[in-house]
Amino acid sequence: PCLSETPEARVLERAVLESRVREMEEENRQIRLQLSQLQGTGVDIRNSVDGIASLFSAQLIHVACVCAGHNASRDVVTLVKSILFHRKNPLHFHFITDAVANQILSSLFQSWMVPSVQVSFYDADELKSEVSWIPNKHYSGIYGLMKLTLTKALPSDLTKVIVLDTDITFATDIAELWAIFRKFTDKQVIGLVENQSDWYLGNLWKNHKPWPALGRGFNTGVILLYLERLRRIGWEQMWRLTAERELMSMLSTSLADQDIFNAFIKQNPVLVHQLPCFWNVQLSDHTRSEQCYTEVSDLKVIHWNSPKKLRVKNKHVEFFRNLYLTFLEYDGNLLRRELFGCPSRAVAIPGSDATPLEELDEDDQCYDFRRERITVHRVHLYFLQYEYTPTGDDTDVTLVAQLSMDRLQMLEAICKHWEGPISLALYMSDAEAQQFLRYAQASEVLKNRKNVGYHIVYKEGQFYPVNLVRNVALRNANTPYVFLADVDFLPMYGLYDYLRKSVVQLDMAHTKKALVVPAFETLRYRLSFPKSKAELLSMLDIGTLYTFRYHVWTKGHAPTNYAKWRTATTPYKVEWEADFEPYVVVKRDCPEYDQRFVGFGWNKVSHIMELDAQEYDLMVLPNAFMIHMPHAPSFDISKFRSSPGYRYCLQTLKEEFHQDLSRKYGAAALKYLTAQRNI
Amino acid sequence: PCLSETPEARVLERAVLESRVREMEEENRQIRLQLSQLQGTGVDIRNSVDGIASLFSAQLIHVACVCAGHNASRDVVTLVKSILFHRKNPLHFHFITDAVANQILSSLFQSWMVPSVQVSFYDADELKSEVSWIPNKHYSGIYGLMKLTLTKALPSDLTKVIVLDTDITFATDIAELWAIFRKFTDKQVIGLVENQSDWYLGNLWKNHKPWPALGRGFNTGVILLYLERLRRIGWEQMWRLTAERELMSMLSTSLADQDIFNAFIKQNPVLVHQLPCFWNVQLSDHTRSEQCYTEVSDLKVIHWNSPKKLRVKNKHVEFFRNLYLTFLEYDGNLLRRELFGCPSRAVAIPGSDATPLEELDEDDQCYDFRRERITVHRVHLYFLQYEYTPTGDDTDVTLVAQLSMDRLQMLEAICKHWEGPISLALYMSDAEAQQFLRYAQASEVLKNRKNVGYHIVYKEGQFYPVNLVRNVALRNANTPYVFLADVDFLPMYGLYDYLRKSVVQLDMAHTKKALVVPAFETLRYRLSFPKSKAELLSMLDIGTLYTFRYHVWTKGHAPTNYAKWRTATTPYKVEWEADFEPYVVVKRDCPEYDQRFVGFGWNKVSHIMELDAQEYDLMVLPNAFMIHMPHAPSFDISKFRSSPGYRYCLQTLKEEFHQDLSRKYGAAALKYLTAQRNI
Repeated sequence: PCLSETPEARVLERAVLESRVREMEEENRQIRLQLSQLQGTGVDIRNSVDGIASLFSAQLIHVACVCAGHNASRDVVTLVKSILFHRKNPLHFHFITDAVANQILSSLFQSWMVPSVQVSFYDADELKSEVSWIPNKHYSGIYGLMKLTLTKALPSDLTKVIVLDTDITFATDIAELWAIFRKFTDKQVIGLVENQSDWYLGNLWKNHKPWPALGRGFNTGVILLYLERLRRIGWEQMWRLTAERELMSMLSTSLADQDIFNAFIKQNPVLVHQLPCFWNVQLSDHTRSEQCYTEVSDLKVIHWNSPKKLRVKNKHVEFFRNLYLTFLEYDGNLLRRELFGCPSRAVAIPGSDATPLEELDEDDQCYDFRRERITVHRVHLYFLQYEYTPTGDDTDVTLVAQLSMDRLQMLEAICKHWEGPISLALYMSDAEAQQFLRYAQASEVLKNRKNVGYHIVYKEGQFYPVNLVRNVALRNANTPYVFLADVDFLPMYGLYDYLRKSVVQLDMAHTKKALVVPAFETLRYRLSFPKSKAELLSMLDIGTLYTFRYHVWTKGHAPTNYAKWRTATTPYKVEWEADFEPYVVVKRDCPEYDQRFVGFGWNKVSHIMELDAQEYDLMVLPNAFMIHMPHAPSFDISKFRSSPGYRYCLQTLKEEFHQDLSRKYGAAALKYLTAQRNI
Repeated sequence: PCLSETPEARVLERAVLESRVREMEEENRQIRLQLSQLQGTGVDIRNSVDGIASLFSAQLIHVACVCAGHNASRDVVTLVKSILFHRKNPLHFHFITDAVANQILSSLFQSWMVPSVQVSFYDADELKSEVSWIPNKHYSGIYGLMKLTLTKALPSDLTKVIVLDTDITFATDIAELWAIFRKFTDKQVIGLVENQSDWYLGNLWKNHKPWPALGRGFNTGVILLYLERLRRIGWEQMWRLTAERELMSMLSTSLADQDIFNAFIKQNPVLVHQLPCFWNVQLSDHTRSEQCYTEVSDLKVIHWNSPKKLRVKNKHVEFFRNLYLTFLEYDGNLLRRELFGCPSRAVAIPGSDATPLEELDEDDQCYDFRRERITVHRVHLYFLQYEYTPTGDDTDVTLVAQLSMDRLQMLEAICKHWEGPISLALYMSDAEAQQFLRYAQASEVLKNRKNVGYHIVYKEGQFYPVNLVRNVALRNANTPYVFLADVDFLPMYGLYDYLRKSVVQLDMAHTKKALVVPAFETLRYRLSFPKSKAELLSMLDIGTLYTFRYHVWTKGHAPTNYAKWRTATTPYKVEWEADFEPYVVVKRDCPEYDQRFVGFGWNKVSHIMELDAQEYDLMVLPNAFMIHMPHAPSFDISKFRSSPGYRYCLQTLKEEFHQDLSRKYGAAALKYLTAQRNI
């Protein structure tokens, strides 16, 4: 379909096309005539194409997917985005998951809140015994085999389901695929696309002996499963018998479920409905898929079934990659759009007592701030591989922090200064999350650390919801204690061990304490980081270091009492004062940050105030320190500085926070109001 | 199309649907039977839907658009993206442009390099006389009226064209719209969608007297123009006569071309082919479009024809906005995909003597660097409003710099320090460019400056192509002299005036000079910026300021001879030395930066070396200075520091640069090689 080279060719081509089109139009007109009899029943059938689409648009489409681990959970999101992008129907996703994928995907969908999308989870562990007896060599491991168990795993009243691998990308409306169930003959129970490699022909190399298959065999990346009929014919028995028989000679499966499906089909060819090749264009290493897609002007489903994934060599790989990247970096918030004709339900915000959107006053000067507070941000927990078990002695401490793209370069340094577990929330767009992924995968320091939990909070709205992001990091710390830090600080070497010892020493388990880690700062990019408190003190004396915000906002850390700290050898208690915002170690079940504070201002101050209201003792650690590294001011600070509106709203929010404190903690909380007024 | 509420309703609904689908399938089967006769002619007709699509896929589709000014040029890109996203056909865009839009769009398409897309430009100024006699009150001004002149403006052998306003978004393949030309009866010459407001009914307010129209009238945001037939019936005469006659009583048009089209149609109703409403869903203020789109499951074209644009109040505006935002922020590079079946032509890179991609050795250790050099980055010049005429005395100087998102906060400060013209190249993704737009539109400082040219260079590849970005800023400076700066520096107050005087004083016009502006740095975020050289010197003495990179890379600026500068009162000449990288003022036609240097390292050094090779005199200005403001290290520096491969390739590139210098400048250039080896 490109520009014809000569005018003659163009004229001829057009004449041929025109005559064909006229013929086809005539035929279509006939259909439309017949269809017009259907009109008046409320369904609008404009022509055959629209007609079919609108007839199906009321149907709920079921999609099943086996998904285990961190990487597959990331992949499946791109699949889901590509489906949501084109869909016009309500959808029900059925995920067979391990514990990791369950946690990630359930929190993701809960916060994604896509209208007309249901999600169900099924425990893969419970299905393991069904397939664990099958020896398997494929990289998908035991999870690939679980596709065999779907008649059992999915609800018994579910009649039909589309089963997809996680490495699939949709380039069209999934309703078109669902519609193919209608073309099944009465006997057919399973719809598949032919395999696009020579694997099952058994001639790839000497002594290559694949499982039995019909011709080239079928690929199981995209399956239409007619569950109702499969149950009726006794599928569960049948595939087992097939597998057992073949395993006597084959010893193990090479391609997991696909070998068993193929052996089964070879014996029962009438049960299969062959799908057109474009429903599963297989980009495997030695694919023959080109014979399929060069013939069709529109590709419907791409299957990245090479272990090389996006790096597979293929003449058209750039084309496929672009389709894939479209969804990989697509802003998932845009998929929250309503389906037309569906009444939108008021959305309840989990765990929030904020005013619902309808009740907000659009003319309120601080409308934008209030709106921000009730915005639900999509959250993808554990975006990267994570494996960590807290130390068994109940003293473990997680460093908790939040950041956005402009602080990414701090991560390696923090990892070098803190060997313990870290819980990081990253405020990013979908595209930035992919940039971060590439960065982390390329970093020797980061990729060797498995005890860092990276949680993506997707961007939305005009403010930086700093306390919401902090809470995501806090909630997902897995140790009894948390060190509430900021990403632009480097902890002293050995702080992790020292904090764990202090937890014991100060009996944190049975008291209500917040351990203060004194904060310092350097204005120099190239700091030779002090190895000890003594070294730090001498750097303070010569002016290489300062106490944190000494020049601009002394009050934030003055109560730490740096003078006393210089000579202290044991922890000492300090009293709360207005605007105190130290970095503290507390129990993980401490109060959360107040999410009404967005952007710059009062985000940590309000948290420390609430700790004090709950009667935490503030204990300064004599041998702990952390140093702030220099960076350019953030956007939100400049916004704050230049806008009187911003300052006014921050003041309003502060007052409301005070009122809430009094309501929660009674008369004792009045001191915060007084302290505030005295400033 | 949502989840049915009760199981009973679901069963009933399904039964009804199933019977309808069976009927329709039967009908389709009949069509397919008939179509099968067509097979064997090489055209693959799988079913009626695919058949029609593939028949049209060879056709070249023509699209015309009137576009003037900076804002419309930004808008039209989103329209074009939405068309390219869905298209499967070769396209030819015809843009009627003023000089501004011509420059922006022609450079954009040249660098975009979308396969199977042709672009032609037509000068709107030449068409002005055709319509300037028509008094018009519509916000589109004289450009709206130009749609009337397309039979004359477009090539005389162009038979059909789709005419679009810039505030249109496509949600489907434009080939479907093009196909409607086939449905025109022999008499019909123009295809339009009915107007979706009550405007032409003339009852909007008291004494509201619209132009004559057929019923509700037609909207001209989307027009199918059958040019060939229009020419045949004498359209040019006809619309003029209509306009002249109506203007006798109406005095002026209210809705520009739309009034005249409607008056014309009222007189000649047989000439119009009414398009289904979903081809132009009008989101104007009091639209009745909901009556259209709630009936169709798929919207095809959205028209943002309210002056409020995206802020229009509408029940479904979130839905429409999401569709629009999809393309607004869509990575335009992904639209470079080939159409299937089109032979890809080797792409010549404008103005580059680099090796073509095919000739690169994939196993070369520096493949990624070399590949970067031949990557063509999409460029959108003058992204924001720009109006500036250089001073008439031929002394004008433009500050030239480049940046990415992480330095955006420098822009306001630079604007406060430099009142003259600025040419900035911004390295960004499509989404970031929109973020930047919002930032600039919200900034009081930036939005009042019209002499800053913002040029977006779209991100691609893994390196920061710093010299390519610098060259875009340099090439688009419009004054005889340029001040080649960096975005993290603040010029001293008054530098603009001082430089213009120095240009005269040093007779820059008739000599080959590079004026050096001495560079200093502060490590403090809150600097009280020195008001004079005297103040600067005393800040140097007390250590509040340093000479630039004094601590880490003295050589970069050592030849400036800061000791001499302290007491200098007249410009003095300095000699080039290895690794010298001062900030200089030169004639605009200076050599460009060498684009092989990407990321960190040697990007300015190589440029100064080439100035020296061309025998520029390096003259230090005694009363000029600039100060580097602190910021966190960039990503590319960290990459450089951690990777031996990066360092190796930089070394290789340096050597190749030296060889090229020798080739270009002969034996004299050998001194650079020697200087290099001595280090």
